[in-house]
Amino acid sequence: MLSSALEFPRRLPAPPEIRKRLKTPDRDLFLIYDVKLQRKHGAWIRRFPDRLAVRSGEPLKSLDSFSRIVEKILRRGQGRKLCFVAFGGGSIGDFAGFLASVYQRGSELVHFPSTWLAALDSAHGGKTALNVGGYKNQIGTFWPASTVWVTREVLLAQPPERLAEVLGEVVKTSLLRGDEWWSETTARAYSGERLWRYLPEAIRFKQKTVARDPYEAGGHRRILNLGHTMGHVIEARLGLPHGEAVRFGLCFAILWSAERGYVKEAFLKACTRAFWWPADRELVRVFRAVGNPGAALARDKKNTRQGVGFVFLRGPGRPIVEKVGVAEIVAELARELRYTL
Amino acid sequence: MLSSALEFPRRLPAPPEIRKRLKTPDRDLFLIYDVKLQRKHGAWIRRFPDRLAVRSGEPLKSLDSFSRIVEKILRRGQGRKLCFVAFGGGSIGDFAGFLASVYQRGSELVHFPSTWLAALDSAHGGKTALNVGGYKNQIGTFWPASTVWVTREVLLAQPPERLAEVLGEVVKTSLLRGDEWWSETTARAYSGERLWRYLPEAIRFKQKTVARDPYEAGGHRRILNLGHTMGHVIEARLGLPHGEAVRFGLCFAILWSAERGYVKEAFLKACTRAFWWPADRELVRVFRAVGNPGAALARDKKNTRQGVGFVFLRGPGRPIVEKVGVAEIVAELARELRYTL
Repeated sequence: MLSSALEFPRRLPAPPEIRKRLKTPDRDLFLIYDVKLQRKHGAWIRRFPDRLAVRSGEPLKSLDSFSRIVEKILRRGQGRKLCFVAFGGGSIGDFAGFLASVYQRGSELVHFPSTWLAALDSAHGGKTALNVGGYKNQIGTFWPASTVWVTREVLLAQPPERLAEVLGEVVKTSLLRGDEWWSETTARAYSGERLWRYLPEAIRFKQKTVARDPYEAGGHRRILNLGHTMGHVIEARLGLPHGEAVRFGLCFAILWSAERGYVKEAFLKACTRAFWWPADRELVRVFRAVGNPGAALARDKKNTRQGVGFVFLRGPGRPIVEKVGVAEIVAELARELRYTL
Repeated sequence: MLSSALEFPRRLPAPPEIRKRLKTPDRDLFLIYDVKLQRKHGAWIRRFPDRLAVRSGEPLKSLDSFSRIVEKILRRGQGRKLCFVAFGGGSIGDFAGFLASVYQRGSELVHFPSTWLAALDSAHGGKTALNVGGYKNQIGTFWPASTVWVTREVLLAQPPERLAEVLGEVVKTSLLRGDEWWSETTARAYSGERLWRYLPEAIRFKQKTVARDPYEAGGHRRILNLGHTMGHVIEARLGLPHGEAVRFGLCFAILWSAERGYVKEAFLKACTRAFWWPADRELVRVFRAVGNPGAALARDKKNTRQGVGFVFLRGPGRPIVEKVGVAEIVAELARELRYTL
């Protein structure tokens, strides 16, 4: 099972409280934290005698920096058995998760996501990843945290503009989940307080989806890729934050679903009028900047010689995965550009 | 489950035959092989379009060389899904096993052990490992091969002197298994042909033991550590091959078991008269060269603050694990030295 226990405390819990929930409570906690969190949460960080500050971002996830940092930890740990506590955003979670999965053939892991995106998405589901050379996320493991601590004081301490970074993932979850929740969560823009209220339900939806297909073998987990096929290309080409890139990727998927007659006109209209749908001008700018996505799609590790498993929608709560060719995606992007212009 | 399917063919099978047994037969095979095997098995190696020669030994297992080699493989693989075929001894199996376990979050693995030691021991049980800095096997995963191909032509192509490298592990298996098999397999020295006949049974014993405790959580798997507590120290200090160092480690464990009154005098006599028991002079030389094993034992990742789980014997087929302190081991080594002199 790749599900983690969930906690939604208002404040950061004391280390003994974290320990109480561990499967291996006799182990020493080793905190790996984003150096940027020191200013706001320094007092809590200093309660961990074993800790290591790292810089978040893609360079942290390189296999070379992994090698350097592991050596540091081994030197300090002196071969002790450890339980890793990850405090940071997605890159720190990916890094610490991979580390925990291979440290002494597997050590317990606890997540304290510090960004909306990590709290909603990357801290759950057990996927860990590192980069090698120019290849992103090609090395990794499935290694879930035993507990994910989604902490109000940490998430609300972020500047409000960080909300934009998660928008795409929140909307994606709403589109996949459907029903009243869908209309409610896409009715108006988010404040931090509002997103905090929606988080538990959104996280549980992801957990349920993952639980049906923990190792991405059966295919059900694949639906979480809604908006991500084009989203990843946009993220790489334009350097947009993940959640923003996914927002454009969702538009791409919805417009294609409409073109194929999978969704009703009313649903398409509801989407294009929603607060999260970008202005036509913006959509054109982004789609144009993508250029030809063929090469980037061919590199995506989710795509096989048989094609890309693309997630379409048949309406809110009704995703459907179909194999499409890279050439079809390229042609569809050109069509959507003409359509939007 | 960490058990692998076993095959004992006389000759190396053709790649299509390997493919037939795969769980992921649509993947391309990627051969990682010991460059030294090229001379004797070059024709077979060249049947794999995707292949990489590596040099066996501990340097291969460093995280730095892992990083370099993974990048090479990614460059050649171009993001294709692969199934790894490891052809070599223990270090190559450890390396390829770790690689397979993290390549695209887990890829299928097939072992072709080329040494007696790998065929009997390291190719089974799913343990993979890398070294970081001076720390041995501190990074690793549990990732069993789907099939282990134990191949007669490969094992018998080794020079006969390689038999000494596995002796300790064969004797260990006999001691743990007990009954008629014990007396039969320890009656006289091994030829390659004789060891080949015993291999299937010895391997199945290891598989059964592992199956009862796949992640070394319950403790049953721990019995496989018989002779290894002191064996690892000897291996590190004297630079002996693993199987030879374990042979001395077995002597240490048996002498201690006798001192504690766990084994009958007759059993001790049978051991000291067996072909594999070293001459007193040799035993003294090795035990003396160990010096004080305290620091080395403290570094062993199997040893916790609660002490060392030491495997004693109560007779053939009757291992028993007991916690002992490092100081007790040091004192026992001194006693055995006096006893042997």
